[in-house]
Amino acid sequence: MTAAATVNNEGMGPVYVAGIGKTAFGAFAERGLASLAVEAIDAALGDAGVEKAAVEAFCLGNFDGPRFTGQNHLAPYVARAAGLPGEIPATRFEAACASGGSAFFHAAQAVASGLYETVLVCGVEKMTSQPTARVAEILAGAGDAALESAVGATFPAIFAMVARRHMYEFGSTREQLAAVAVKNHANAALNPQAHLKKVITIEQALAGKPVAEPLTIYDCSLVSDGAAAVLLTSKASGVRVAGLAQASGPVALSDRESITSFAATRRAAAKAYAMARCGPRDIDVAEVHDCFTIAELIAMEDLGFVEAGRSGPWVAAGATKIGGEIPVNTSGGLKAKGHPVGATGVAQICDLILQMRGGAGPRQVAKAGRGLAQNLGGSGATSVVAILEKV
Amino acid sequence: MTAAATVNNEGMGPVYVAGIGKTAFGAFAERGLASLAVEAIDAALGDAGVEKAAVEAFCLGNFDGPRFTGQNHLAPYVARAAGLPGEIPATRFEAACASGGSAFFHAAQAVASGLYETVLVCGVEKMTSQPTARVAEILAGAGDAALESAVGATFPAIFAMVARRHMYEFGSTREQLAAVAVKNHANAALNPQAHLKKVITIEQALAGKPVAEPLTIYDCSLVSDGAAAVLLTSKASGVRVAGLAQASGPVALSDRESITSFAATRRAAAKAYAMARCGPRDIDVAEVHDCFTIAELIAMEDLGFVEAGRSGPWVAAGATKIGGEIPVNTSGGLKAKGHPVGATGVAQICDLILQMRGGAGPRQVAKAGRGLAQNLGGSGATSVVAILEKV
Repeated sequence: MTAAATVNNEGMGPVYVAGIGKTAFGAFAERGLASLAVEAIDAALGDAGVEKAAVEAFCLGNFDGPRFTGQNHLAPYVARAAGLPGEIPATRFEAACASGGSAFFHAAQAVASGLYETVLVCGVEKMTSQPTARVAEILAGAGDAALESAVGATFPAIFAMVARRHMYEFGSTREQLAAVAVKNHANAALNPQAHLKKVITIEQALAGKPVAEPLTIYDCSLVSDGAAAVLLTSKASGVRVAGLAQASGPVALSDRESITSFAATRRAAAKAYAMARCGPRDIDVAEVHDCFTIAELIAMEDLGFVEAGRSGPWVAAGATKIGGEIPVNTSGGLKAKGHPVGATGVAQICDLILQMRGGAGPRQVAKAGRGLAQNLGGSGATSVVAILEKV
Repeated sequence: MTAAATVNNEGMGPVYVAGIGKTAFGAFAERGLASLAVEAIDAALGDAGVEKAAVEAFCLGNFDGPRFTGQNHLAPYVARAAGLPGEIPATRFEAACASGGSAFFHAAQAVASGLYETVLVCGVEKMTSQPTARVAEILAGAGDAALESAVGATFPAIFAMVARRHMYEFGSTREQLAAVAVKNHANAALNPQAHLKKVITIEQALAGKPVAEPLTIYDCSLVSDGAAAVLLTSKASGVRVAGLAQASGPVALSDRESITSFAATRRAAAKAYAMARCGPRDIDVAEVHDCFTIAELIAMEDLGFVEAGRSGPWVAAGATKIGGEIPVNTSGGLKAKGHPVGATGVAQICDLILQMRGGAGPRQVAKAGRGLAQNLGGSGATSVVAILEKV
């Protein structure tokens, strides 16, 4: 094969998601990391009807449990708490905010290649026990420590530069950014597991407390605790992993040719579409990485949902609302569902499958035969794109 | 397949180590993490005669770069510094002190399963930029934060309890522990890339500064900077990965039935031997995880080189010296070669292959057709065992 990472290539077998499980996302002062992870794992195994003894490998997505909680070596730690068998490998995958997506990617590869029949993936992060300034410092580790955080460029500042550049190049507006926030807040208000259930208006979003100009507090995702888990299997089940790829790019913004498009997402998307033998027009519903509102706009372009530079007006016109052309982040997204970093990539898969099963309640979309999840690490140094199809 | 993790199972293809590369291990005030990793990567690619463009996936083993260096998201960070293609997945694998072994395990699985033809593995840690007390605090994250480090049980204390119990159950002595240190110091003195080249006597080891009774400073491995890399390929090359497994156990000592044997190592070894269709008697040379001298004694038993409880007299009699029954840690081991945590598991593979190629110079063993590496995480919650064979 060529220099790219795929599943379901020639000789590769099918991979199905047999079970999903999530905790609510929020600030849970009384809950530890392992307790959250075990709740999600038990829910996913219960949903799949699979016993713990049948799990052949455990893949944990976690960004920085060591700094958030003081506990490292988290894969066997969580595996033990969940009662998984000791004979199996338990490994933590770290790819910044794409840690959950990366764990899912490697787990699905292992099933597709025939190594295992049954692999459990969990993503988890426990963030709210740290003061906000410390959270910002820990998150800044996902950027370039020397070129970015050492000179004060924490993530809101990094994405503010990206937003400014997108405005400069394409004429995008603060109102268009705010439209992303308004949509995702509205969706989260319909999601009982969302961190924030607060409907907002464009005016409220624009009047939000400035964080890093042009971004207000309403342009930024939440700091949350939470966990999500999925059980992957080689046996035919409800939803198949049709396309999947993980790709990379430079960590620092200053090392890139463009900062209004993330090469890692474009690379991963091209590969995932090719594997799934489909294109952006064939996607019914998507969960994308809206760590900041500008990231959702750029994801629309990098995934090919709309042409480069045109995401602002397209989203502001309602194309990605429930009932729109391609409903995006019907869960409420990182913006309002919440963003427990390591959990996010796995939670996206859970939320897509909820739609594909017709179980999304008041936020259910009409057509959900094919879903896409996009999970970004840092400001785009890692991207994982997954395409799921109803069997 | 059953609930265990393997390569080269039915339907799995062969995996070869086509190139090895290592930095010297030591305290390098002027070197950053990426610089060390790139040196090892360039050496491994050069040794294999493989271009960067041919690498299809990058697996990085690193324990806690975020806390040691402030930089997280290290896989794309190192991949970029090394000039690897952006199209490929770059992922960090964390399994405490077995992070390097775990990266190797997952990379070899991916090649064996046919996902890729060419995968690059690098292990790296940059530790000496932190003060010693902070290093101990970071390393303590590999144990149980609530049950161990919160009550003062840093790793020397944990392994001191293990040593005391081994003495109590089996009559092992401080002199037998010291014999491990004397052997590994002697071997490292012959290794130009070792951190410490200081031949010591039993008397010196016994008179070492107490760290955690019964362990002296000479029973403890080093805090080092360093990197190691290997290139894995599906094309026939000099050394084949004949057996390989990763297994788990509880993180906390208090959760185990026995603390004088590590279940994860026994589980991984049983599987690796079965895959390689050989047993402990067929191993010519081994690199094992001597984070403390007691860990090397227990490894001898868990790997089946000697019966449970008998490692002390067996090692003290010279069975594991160069020229002995099974030469162990001819590189000098973690004890004297050095222990840049994330690099260790990959460095063990490099050092074994150096012996198998007949390139170990004054520490060359007579017979090195089959080698075994054992890489332990924490106090045994993760263990990776690899068996290599000359083609």
